[in-house]
Amino acid sequence: MSGQQLYPYLDRINVPADFRTFDAAELKGLCNDVREFLIEVISRTGGHLGAGLGAVELAVALHYVFNTPHDKLVWDVGHQAYPHKILTGRKNRLDTIRQYKGLSGFLKRTESEYDTFGAGHASTAISAALGMVAARETTGGDFKVVAIVGDGSMTGGMVYEGMNNAGIMKKDMIVVLNDNNMSIAPNVWAISNYFTELIADPRYNRLKKNVYELTGKLDTWGDRIRKVTARLEGGLKVVITPGMLFEALGFRYFGPINGHNITQLVRIFQEVRNLEGPILVHTITQKGKGYKPAEEDEQRLHGVTPFDKVTGRSPKKAGGPPAYTKVFGSAVVELARQKPNLVALTAAMPDGTGLDQLQRELPERFYDVGIAEQHGVTFAAGLATQGCIPIVAVYSSFLQRAYDQIIHDVALQHLHVVFALDRAGVVGADGPTHHGVFDLSYLRAIPGMVIMAPKDESELRDMLYTAVTHTGGPIALRYPRGSGLGVPLKPGFDALPIGKSEIIRTGSDIALLAVGELVAPAFQAATTLAEEGIHCEVVNMRFVKPLDTVLLDEIAERFPYVVTLENNSVLGGFGSAVCEYYAQREHKDLHVTVHGVPDRFVDHGSPAELAAELGLDSPGIAAVVRSVLHAPTPHIAG
Amino acid sequence: MSGQQLYPYLDRINVPADFRTFDAAELKGLCNDVREFLIEVISRTGGHLGAGLGAVELAVALHYVFNTPHDKLVWDVGHQAYPHKILTGRKNRLDTIRQYKGLSGFLKRTESEYDTFGAGHASTAISAALGMVAARETTGGDFKVVAIVGDGSMTGGMVYEGMNNAGIMKKDMIVVLNDNNMSIAPNVWAISNYFTELIADPRYNRLKKNVYELTGKLDTWGDRIRKVTARLEGGLKVVITPGMLFEALGFRYFGPINGHNITQLVRIFQEVRNLEGPILVHTITQKGKGYKPAEEDEQRLHGVTPFDKVTGRSPKKAGGPPAYTKVFGSAVVELARQKPNLVALTAAMPDGTGLDQLQRELPERFYDVGIAEQHGVTFAAGLATQGCIPIVAVYSSFLQRAYDQIIHDVALQHLHVVFALDRAGVVGADGPTHHGVFDLSYLRAIPGMVIMAPKDESELRDMLYTAVTHTGGPIALRYPRGSGLGVPLKPGFDALPIGKSEIIRTGSDIALLAVGELVAPAFQAATTLAEEGIHCEVVNMRFVKPLDTVLLDEIAERFPYVVTLENNSVLGGFGSAVCEYYAQREHKDLHVTVHGVPDRFVDHGSPAELAAELGLDSPGIAAVVRSVLHAPTPHIAG
Repeated sequence: MSGQQLYPYLDRINVPADFRTFDAAELKGLCNDVREFLIEVISRTGGHLGAGLGAVELAVALHYVFNTPHDKLVWDVGHQAYPHKILTGRKNRLDTIRQYKGLSGFLKRTESEYDTFGAGHASTAISAALGMVAARETTGGDFKVVAIVGDGSMTGGMVYEGMNNAGIMKKDMIVVLNDNNMSIAPNVWAISNYFTELIADPRYNRLKKNVYELTGKLDTWGDRIRKVTARLEGGLKVVITPGMLFEALGFRYFGPINGHNITQLVRIFQEVRNLEGPILVHTITQKGKGYKPAEEDEQRLHGVTPFDKVTGRSPKKAGGPPAYTKVFGSAVVELARQKPNLVALTAAMPDGTGLDQLQRELPERFYDVGIAEQHGVTFAAGLATQGCIPIVAVYSSFLQRAYDQIIHDVALQHLHVVFALDRAGVVGADGPTHHGVFDLSYLRAIPGMVIMAPKDESELRDMLYTAVTHTGGPIALRYPRGSGLGVPLKPGFDALPIGKSEIIRTGSDIALLAVGELVAPAFQAATTLAEEGIHCEVVNMRFVKPLDTVLLDEIAERFPYVVTLENNSVLGGFGSAVCEYYAQREHKDLHVTVHGVPDRFVDHGSPAELAAELGLDSPGIAAVVRSVLHAPTPHIAG
Repeated sequence: MSGQQLYPYLDRINVPADFRTFDAAELKGLCNDVREFLIEVISRTGGHLGAGLGAVELAVALHYVFNTPHDKLVWDVGHQAYPHKILTGRKNRLDTIRQYKGLSGFLKRTESEYDTFGAGHASTAISAALGMVAARETTGGDFKVVAIVGDGSMTGGMVYEGMNNAGIMKKDMIVVLNDNNMSIAPNVWAISNYFTELIADPRYNRLKKNVYELTGKLDTWGDRIRKVTARLEGGLKVVITPGMLFEALGFRYFGPINGHNITQLVRIFQEVRNLEGPILVHTITQKGKGYKPAEEDEQRLHGVTPFDKVTGRSPKKAGGPPAYTKVFGSAVVELARQKPNLVALTAAMPDGTGLDQLQRELPERFYDVGIAEQHGVTFAAGLATQGCIPIVAVYSSFLQRAYDQIIHDVALQHLHVVFALDRAGVVGADGPTHHGVFDLSYLRAIPGMVIMAPKDESELRDMLYTAVTHTGGPIALRYPRGSGLGVPLKPGFDALPIGKSEIIRTGSDIALLAVGELVAPAFQAATTLAEEGIHCEVVNMRFVKPLDTVLLDEIAERFPYVVTLENNSVLGGFGSAVCEYYAQREHKDLHVTVHGVPDRFVDHGSPAELAAELGLDSPGIAAVVRSVLHAPTPHIAG
């Protein structure tokens, strides 16, 4: 293979204009190259593989037919957009994807003019595309707009809102439904089921054949019957093809189409390119297409660490401490066995939240509501009105979708709903769309909300128990992505007193008030600083709301300096709560430093890299303390 | 009329059990009484009339057939629920509706066991009802659950998320679509249009007749054709009746049904009561039914002040200062005429936001996206990517629905979208679901967001201009419900320097830092206090973010006491920002008092009553200042 070109077609192109002259065979070759290249690179670097493999032909066909970047492609979420990145000038940087300072794992406007709209959360593309269409009307542009939406994203209410609005506006736009019948978890989508059933249904063709055969044999009446059935046909097509819903929403439906047939895709896009009004093109694709290990285990190869290209297996991780997610998932099952009225739900994330264990072991106590956070939270409120204890397990950044429902449906009615926020704080490679750095701020403003964050995975168990046995309205716990500290997990659970903190190290110079996973680096920083003669008191706050005001008063009596530590925005979060409290007391000689995620969006990178950048690791915390005390930075012995 | 009973049937009942023995004629009489009673009371007290008049028969039929409160009725929003309140033990208190300490204008769990789920924001009922259904599975209850949803609420994505989930769960539940083809504004709903067109369409019946006539005349083939067409019929019914969408989502569809025919309603509910799986009953009703003035002007009599029962006219208001809403609406038109790329959108609230003027005068620059805040914000982001300047005009409490979209689609991409938040602060009679008292908190945590609040309607104009001409990402202005101060409106606009405040009264004892509409009562309080020898400096902050830190530093040098004033939660808002800032400076002798909406939900009442309760009027502010300074409360000369 030495002299052979690895990617004969891909090597000839850099941007879409380079392959718009390709013939059918060359386009096929290009698809093949993109697929091989994608597997090769992601096997080395990790990243999202399956969705991209399913969208290779789609990306090639769209960039071939549409005059990008003048025409606008709006990709939903972005997992599916790796081939798009390869085709739009970024193939040589693909091996930096999801790495610090490297390419984003999602669409990003600042990364390429071909990325027309950033996306990390699902279901936004149609709304954004419709906005571009409306802008075209106002500014007199002549570009085409195409939104490409996976079937998983179609469970989100935004899609319905957007399509409904597009159906009314009746302007030219194209939505491609990239249907691989698999979002992140096995699909839970009624419409998707409907599709799947109907696509396989031979009724339409058989009926048509029956009626025509029949009427062909008739004399006088034959013609009239043919006319009647022709009139029926328009309606019928709608009934027994998947287009029903979309036609109801005012879209013209084309499909279903084999999304791996590049020739057919090019033909259909050329056809619909110049049609008027809202158009829906329904393509059927296979996640992981063309790579056996990914086709066979769609779930596992959705997002991957580096793996062996031939077997598809990643090297086994050394047996480190269990992830917070895993500890949470097991604790839910344990509690569900004790409490017959406990149920848990997630928004299309059974694996990501650890609820897959409940789903397997007590399926009747588990709900997957789809990518539908708004519905999920109000559904939980309904459960709570009838004596169930619902646990809503969701990523911190996704719960932003349900902010109004938390206020309006849960908190206002003082309902006992437990919010378990995974991926709180800076999350790492997924980047700014997924960082859960606002929850302490947006939850704290809600009356009656209790907010906890555990210092380790054992405390997570106790906090979950505290939340489940709490009877005074909504209560939330938030914990980070990744491994716990490896502390022993005691059998059973202990309820923590609401609003009480825990002093884990006494000191005399400065108090470090830490929340959640920052307790450990704070402790570590205190150890380091002790060697420099700086003696820190370290408090595990446990509760962001209600605040432990008894502790805060004591601290103010004993220390002139307080540093608050949280993996959340410095605006409106825990530190802000401490400032609010102290500002109104008569502690005149107290100096409070709020340390957390700064008031800017933080890019992607490994959790360690980001913690270092933001000073949220133990060296960063130590540096803050030194700076507050005007202490010198020690020289590290070389 | 003296000896005649006004409400012969209504007088015999208090709760639904009292009329479950009624015969058809008595039920009709009861409906009549409820309608007359409703008109009579609301003409005196004001409140929501049209929706309730449309739902009289529905409420009677549902409470008659279903064993409430054991069976659960979940009313969406609650405007339609006045008859429900009359029938469930609250008729004698109806004249207190929307008044301080009186009945809520919406459903409220603490008000009645018949109010199973509170609601003020649209589209939540199906999710809540499904939660109750799920709870019934877990706890082994045997109650029925019925959600009653207006067609306007059906534009919200939550409805789609909820129905989709219900379709998958396949549990027994009933959704009544109360379709009066009119939400709050003239309907903008594609599906609704679809309904309207199809209901009138004679195709289904004509086709059926054709085919049967035809095949009856045939010999051998007749039977076969009849079989074929019978098989077609199931599908066809779906196509050419409104059930299409709901059948696609897994619901069995019944309707459309005349929602004012009590006998037919009772029959259909008795029928579907014991059917299995998700059922949708589609009733067609008329908003304002039975009261000519309300039938003829649905928009005006949606929510009303007291009016003359015969003419339907409210007494003309004395010509006070224009409402903020009105000033905003005019300014948008004025700016749109200057800037061809300016557009504005609202979520089904053209009148409520003042954008109706733009809709009339420059319709091509106006968008009504339906009750779909999530979509609306991302739609605006799409507009901004292509060089338009979109103004999103929405009530503060409704913008909570789009929190994630503001972060993820607008702010993260640093897009220039203008958020105009009407009904910010405590709103009055609509109560806790509608108070806009979290926006300063939830917006402030978002990186790059600029937040303003005008002291009066003239400054509102300048702030809108500032927002429109701002080129650095998202920018919000928030202003209260109701009238401005009556200040003169100068021609044209001035841009305000971002992050700069305005000192409007100098003083020496204490600084009052006020936001938005609290500037005026702060000034008034300062005048009062001056007579007591307390000299307040009053600052119109203008910007909540970025803070005027130059001013804050000066203030800290000059004053030992600062009081922050805002019509927003005291957690995480403007006062919190001031505390954060000062805590980290070396102003050791500064005492900050944060005054605003306390950390609890605030009930309904008139704006003046609520401001007095919360101390947000000038006497309340004066009292806070005295308390901070330990000054005596003066005796008011009697």
